[in-house]
Amino acid sequence: MTSTAADPLPSWNEGPAKQAILAFLARVTEEGSPDFLPPAERIAVFDNDGTLWPENPMPFQAAFALDELKRRVATEPGLAADPMVQAALAGDLARLLAGEHHDGVMRVLALTHAGMTTDEFRDAVVAWLASARHPRFGRRYDELTYLPMQELLRHLRANGFKHFIVSGGGADFMRVWVERVYGIPPEQVVGSTARTTFELRDSGPVLTKTLDHLFVNDRQGKPVGIHQFIGRRPVVCCGNSDGDHAMLQYTTIDNPRPSFGLIVHHTDGDREYAYDAETKSTGRLVDALEEAPGRGWLVVDMKRDWKAVFRPE
Amino acid sequence: MTSTAADPLPSWNEGPAKQAILAFLARVTEEGSPDFLPPAERIAVFDNDGTLWPENPMPFQAAFALDELKRRVATEPGLAADPMVQAALAGDLARLLAGEHHDGVMRVLALTHAGMTTDEFRDAVVAWLASARHPRFGRRYDELTYLPMQELLRHLRANGFKHFIVSGGGADFMRVWVERVYGIPPEQVVGSTARTTFELRDSGPVLTKTLDHLFVNDRQGKPVGIHQFIGRRPVVCCGNSDGDHAMLQYTTIDNPRPSFGLIVHHTDGDREYAYDAETKSTGRLVDALEEAPGRGWLVVDMKRDWKAVFRPE
Repeated sequence: MTSTAADPLPSWNEGPAKQAILAFLARVTEEGSPDFLPPAERIAVFDNDGTLWPENPMPFQAAFALDELKRRVATEPGLAADPMVQAALAGDLARLLAGEHHDGVMRVLALTHAGMTTDEFRDAVVAWLASARHPRFGRRYDELTYLPMQELLRHLRANGFKHFIVSGGGADFMRVWVERVYGIPPEQVVGSTARTTFELRDSGPVLTKTLDHLFVNDRQGKPVGIHQFIGRRPVVCCGNSDGDHAMLQYTTIDNPRPSFGLIVHHTDGDREYAYDAETKSTGRLVDALEEAPGRGWLVVDMKRDWKAVFRPE
Repeated sequence: MTSTAADPLPSWNEGPAKQAILAFLARVTEEGSPDFLPPAERIAVFDNDGTLWPENPMPFQAAFALDELKRRVATEPGLAADPMVQAALAGDLARLLAGEHHDGVMRVLALTHAGMTTDEFRDAVVAWLASARHPRFGRRYDELTYLPMQELLRHLRANGFKHFIVSGGGADFMRVWVERVYGIPPEQVVGSTARTTFELRDSGPVLTKTLDHLFVNDRQGKPVGIHQFIGRRPVVCCGNSDGDHAMLQYTTIDNPRPSFGLIVHHTDGDREYAYDAETKSTGRLVDALEEAPGRGWLVVDMKRDWKAVFRPE
């Protein structure tokens, strides 16, 4: 482990969670240790929604989609006729979240995430991030990343780890801001994707977003996405829900290398949100939590283990 | 540009090709230059077959597939009944290459690239590379990378470029050896892919290769693959055939950053192979070659510009 005089995790309370993280890093980065991880294999994967920033009152990308619908429905009457658009505008989250893969959410995302060029989509995300505010915290969405997790990202990186976001969120949505917000370059984002089409217009080369071959990078899809995009097994995996269960298993079970699984447990309704089995948004956590002790996954109790949740305003 | 006493491209003959490469690097890496490329944007993409190693007498991955068929057909009679297997075993390359996307080749690859775990597939590739020899050169396939291109990879890397292979070849096939052979980690490989399925067996987590959602990373698919896997536009693109035409366009046309396109023209039948419009394997080069002068793409004449083709035995 890189020796630093300063505490590398100042927003973590002293206790078993912080100790477990530091002990793992000491074990795998000490030259000559039997658990030494060659630098090239220090691959760490992070879920995004609920792990690096909140997913309440709805996943932030869903808020983007709703705001886009609101903005466009005034000038595009056809859009207002779609039953899922109606459900979205009525705030009927239950209908949008129904089904194993949240089909309504996916439909709305699809309506707002296809039919434009990748540059146009990027510009829409940039404009939204600049203007939208979180309904409870009143801050820009990209200011609401978890400070302790930012410290963990930074400290792992200082110890030679290469980070990948592995999220059910759209790759095109996240790639707009991950470098600025997490210091993770766009090429290290594994997310939900669909095909684009390439075309050489008079104005230059253009990629247009479609819905074809939609890949939902969630649950069993996460190890599948990791294999497709990264091509090797991670050794560190941080998640917060049953959507991360399969990638926690893929990272830690029978891995010939030492590995580390971490679950952010949302226990702090005062400072953030409290949920696991029952959630009003995404982020249900039951199976992975039950399996955690047997697998040695670290369950981080936000209320107990985090000194601060967000960066002070 | 990193200043080195030694020539960084010793296997390139002095002349306009070598000068063009060195001049571009000088222009984009000099601090304060109007064309200075921020390090994070130094993304370089390389086709593999025909650009970094030969694609004759057939793409090396096709040789792997044929050798796998030969090995297995003896013990799996069902395999022998497939008409494309028969064509393959009869050496009927024309039939295998017929169709825009070489459907026969794809069918044979599919038969030999699905139904096993990703670990089993990796082991098969490792075993094949260790035993197979190129029919003309008598050397291991992975010893037949082009020495001048290896020097170009190394020199670009020394100047802060991050390399991605962007190949029609299978990502799972290439990831087995790219790090050892090119110094490019598996997560920087964009190739043809299909979905895997995840399963937790008693023996541990397993990914099984399928043919679902086959993505052929060739022609128009290359910029599509670049967007899906990398998520930003490259500034350097090296290819050798019309399969690379779209990614040459995507890299260089109306790119707000300075960019560089390079085409390896196979002109040396004595030391390697000579082909462009007419080829017995893949690698047809007509449209991209015609467009090259107008776009300012560097056409490398293997016979004239390369002092050596392969590393001496």
